[in-house]
Amino acid sequence: MKNLIIASTSTIYGLGYLEYLMPVLKDHFKNATTILFIPYARPGGISHDDYTAKVAEAFAQIDKKIVGLHTFENPVEAIEKAEGIFTGGGNTFLLVKQLYWHNVMLPLKEVLQNGAPYLGCSAGSNITGLTMETTNDMPIVYPPSFQTLGMVPFNINPHYLDPIEGSTHMGETRETRINEFHCFNSQPVLGLREGSWLEVHGSKITLKGSLTARLFRQNQSPIELETETDLSNLS
Amino acid sequence: MKNLIIASTSTIYGLGYLEYLMPVLKDHFKNATTILFIPYARPGGISHDDYTAKVAEAFAQIDKKIVGLHTFENPVEAIEKAEGIFTGGGNTFLLVKQLYWHNVMLPLKEVLQNGAPYLGCSAGSNITGLTMETTNDMPIVYPPSFQTLGMVPFNINPHYLDPIEGSTHMGETRETRINEFHCFNSQPVLGLREGSWLEVHGSKITLKGSLTARLFRQNQSPIELETETDLSNLS
Repeated sequence: MKNLIIASTSTIYGLGYLEYLMPVLKDHFKNATTILFIPYARPGGISHDDYTAKVAEAFAQIDKKIVGLHTFENPVEAIEKAEGIFTGGGNTFLLVKQLYWHNVMLPLKEVLQNGAPYLGCSAGSNITGLTMETTNDMPIVYPPSFQTLGMVPFNINPHYLDPIEGSTHMGETRETRINEFHCFNSQPVLGLREGSWLEVHGSKITLKGSLTARLFRQNQSPIELETETDLSNLS
Repeated sequence: MKNLIIASTSTIYGLGYLEYLMPVLKDHFKNATTILFIPYARPGGISHDDYTAKVAEAFAQIDKKIVGLHTFENPVEAIEKAEGIFTGGGNTFLLVKQLYWHNVMLPLKEVLQNGAPYLGCSAGSNITGLTMETTNDMPIVYPPSFQTLGMVPFNINPHYLDPIEGSTHMGETRETRINEFHCFNSQPVLGLREGSWLEVHGSKITLKGSLTARLFRQNQSPIELETETDLSNLS
């Protein structure tokens, strides 16, 4: 049965990397000695090694060893054998392109369906939705498809941002962008604010964290969902 | 010889649609009675007819007739015969998908190279660059390619936005996103603030409007360009 933490962000303003999630992660990865890290999204263009080292430092606090997927000659086998998996944030287009390039999108989907504990942050959360089409990222590379893992029956919009009051900028608000998505796509979109996450246990999906999340459904007005809302029947 | 206006935005805060550009457009389209409007980017999912009507209302001020590309049975022929062309803003992924779907990307490139006066705003400006990979838009549909018209030898980032001082949001700033683009792509990116535009006459490219623009080049620090800067040799 599925076992995922799908977080809006790795980092909350004023706290260290993954700090706000550590108590949750300690329990989530309790049966894993080593966690496989997928660094493909590479935020800011840092190297895979540097990104992996940053993650290892954070997970050392709960005595977990981190190994980067990029260090394996056979990444499919690495995914299949992983005790736990974490996909970090960065650019979703880059992440998805690399997952397809290394032929690990499908193996990743399979191990997650079979219960490997997973953590996604930001781009790593985006890919748990049906498609990556509600990412906020810039299309800096061209992936072979926008289809992603479908671990939840809707799309994720991480780092969800409310309209900035008094802004004179004429670019689209996040809400406008998601409404445009719904002109061409029917699946719900969950706007997860920084500090919120989803807990997926089997078929049960629960909103966690102290904030509300914003749910967008095609041809309906968006609504705010309270923490602990059960999203299992959302599709 | 090329003859383009490439504008960051259609609308400046507090003014009407295209209002700030009308004196420029009157001269730019002086030899055109009718302007062909490409409504494919469809902002907010309004219909092609409604979008075209909005544009027609604005251009009535300078006595131009507007016809929507979507009303032609043969869009390639409509492009080839156009006295002037305007591509409006909206979603760049949608626009590019539709341009390829209707097989008009290449014909559009050809007529622009041959001197048809062109106006682009926002998404309609994005496509004048080498690729659409520095759009700010959400990937709500999957285009067959990110390659665009290449009317300028660099990429455009419309609605360029400076980092918001004091923001606690952990999503990437525009500058960070463009730097990530440059981890994988070598062409310069011009961040055009709302109210700026490029004037392209033949091989001459000039920055217009009262604001500076921000130029990003691979492996170099970004710089601010003054209005009237000649960008002809930028590549």
